[in-house]
Amino acid sequence: MAILIYHKEIYIHNWVKALKGADQTLDIRIYPETGDVEDILFGITAAGYPEGLWRRFPNLKALSSIGAGVSHILEDATLPPDLPVLKLVDKRLNQSMWEYILATVTYCSKHLHRYQMQQRESVWKELRPNSFDRTTVGVLGLGSIGSFVAQHLATLGFVVKGFANSHREIGGVEVSKLSEASDEIMASVDIWISILPLTAQTENIFDQHFFSRLKEGAVLINVGRGHQVVDDDLIDALDCGQLSYAYLDVFREEPLPKSHPFWRHPQISTTPHIASITSPRSVAEQIVTNYYHALTGEPLDNVVDRVLGY
Amino acid sequence: MAILIYHKEIYIHNWVKALKGADQTLDIRIYPETGDVEDILFGITAAGYPEGLWRRFPNLKALSSIGAGVSHILEDATLPPDLPVLKLVDKRLNQSMWEYILATVTYCSKHLHRYQMQQRESVWKELRPNSFDRTTVGVLGLGSIGSFVAQHLATLGFVVKGFANSHREIGGVEVSKLSEASDEIMASVDIWISILPLTAQTENIFDQHFFSRLKEGAVLINVGRGHQVVDDDLIDALDCGQLSYAYLDVFREEPLPKSHPFWRHPQISTTPHIASITSPRSVAEQIVTNYYHALTGEPLDNVVDRVLGY
Repeated sequence: MAILIYHKEIYIHNWVKALKGADQTLDIRIYPETGDVEDILFGITAAGYPEGLWRRFPNLKALSSIGAGVSHILEDATLPPDLPVLKLVDKRLNQSMWEYILATVTYCSKHLHRYQMQQRESVWKELRPNSFDRTTVGVLGLGSIGSFVAQHLATLGFVVKGFANSHREIGGVEVSKLSEASDEIMASVDIWISILPLTAQTENIFDQHFFSRLKEGAVLINVGRGHQVVDDDLIDALDCGQLSYAYLDVFREEPLPKSHPFWRHPQISTTPHIASITSPRSVAEQIVTNYYHALTGEPLDNVVDRVLGY
Repeated sequence: MAILIYHKEIYIHNWVKALKGADQTLDIRIYPETGDVEDILFGITAAGYPEGLWRRFPNLKALSSIGAGVSHILEDATLPPDLPVLKLVDKRLNQSMWEYILATVTYCSKHLHRYQMQQRESVWKELRPNSFDRTTVGVLGLGSIGSFVAQHLATLGFVVKGFANSHREIGGVEVSKLSEASDEIMASVDIWISILPLTAQTENIFDQHFFSRLKEGAVLINVGRGHQVVDDDLIDALDCGQLSYAYLDVFREEPLPKSHPFWRHPQISTTPHIASITSPRSVAEQIVTNYYHALTGEPLDNVVDRVLGY
């Protein structure tokens, strides 16, 4: 019985090392070196695998995402319908996402993006000072990561409003159902952070209609999924001033194609999908536990609801 | 008896409003409308005032800086030698500085400056991930603001080393005397933050010798004073890779002249001396108290040692 990993990254050896560190008896294989397909009991996968890959293994008992997001697995129509799909719940991943979000939120709150635009023109001009406690941050998505981020931003003094599908209680954070959020609440947020999972409801959510409800000059930070953004609508919203800036870590197509206008837009900062980096060492135990549960038929942890999408 | 304010900013009416809010009987004058020079008992001043301004007032009992820094006053050779010089100690000013430093430290810790350089070339490339707990931050200057910053960065998970003239105890922070810091400690810091006051010891402190002792690729964030940086040495250190980036809020000449190479250097971000914004409302009480102490001859608060320079 073996674990198969599909991953395009150069850090793949870190995954093998971490899993072997948790249990050195494991038989770990790296795609395309699958060996006998009947051996594969457990899969760990990044996005972009060859179509139909995961139905080649007749004894596959569970497929784990290599990160927090699972939409890249769920959209695979060739996946066996009753195969349990697992997400990784990782404190270090929360921390990694939190650090990225803190860096980008503080950057925009202190107007450093606007000072950088001024620098390009050699303009020395003091902008109206802003402080954390006069910055309203809207956190879209209040799962494990979103709740962590919302709470920690509130602790630092930001005014935080949370948006989720269902009601949550988070200390210091005003929570609304996104579908029912009033125009007043939508227009109160200065900086939007999206950590939404990709579902039928959230696909293309950042469109002209959404942007039209925001405070003029709002900022969007997207660390969710690229398919949530209607790219042309985002550019229009930036060009007309409805949005003042966007910090984007995820894109409809990754790597972002060289010809894409996001690369060169003066009000957009891009990063190559690095906000949430899963640390192999910190999730190895979790994977090994699920592997043995799959082997013995015990209930698995962190199973995704394939209909809800998270 | 009156207070005279010298300030070039457009926000000057906020100062008058805040002081009047604390005591509406005050007679407040704004340069150049001094009225009778014998009336002026107390001065509040920004940098850049006409030479000899503050010796024109025979009854002047104290001169307060309009911010935390006082070097712009102390370097004035025309100042009466026994005139008490006051600094403002302001919790909001600590907070403003902290917010700027947090934004720039997290930005550099998460390599966002390097991703921005990659974006200019449309390069999609994941850099080696970094986390707060693998980032060593060196805080130069552990006065009221520096101690606050060092402690709060440590709380967020950064490895913090503090450097001061004398020994301090700050929870979670390893403190060294700057003049005695070992090569090992100097080479352990990834991101340097300078909040040093400008004194004879700190003038030109960031020179070729200083940079040569640092870890290759270190970052310098300067919110102290511009005269602490030897501009050409900084550019050389960036060009040869000894430093990877500099975030500068203060300059030898302000506004930074249009022809200065800092404007266009790809490894330098500039902001127009905005890291520490004094909020008039939060320091009005402090100024009014000192004004009445000056009037009655009681001891003044926050008097600067004109020899030490802080």
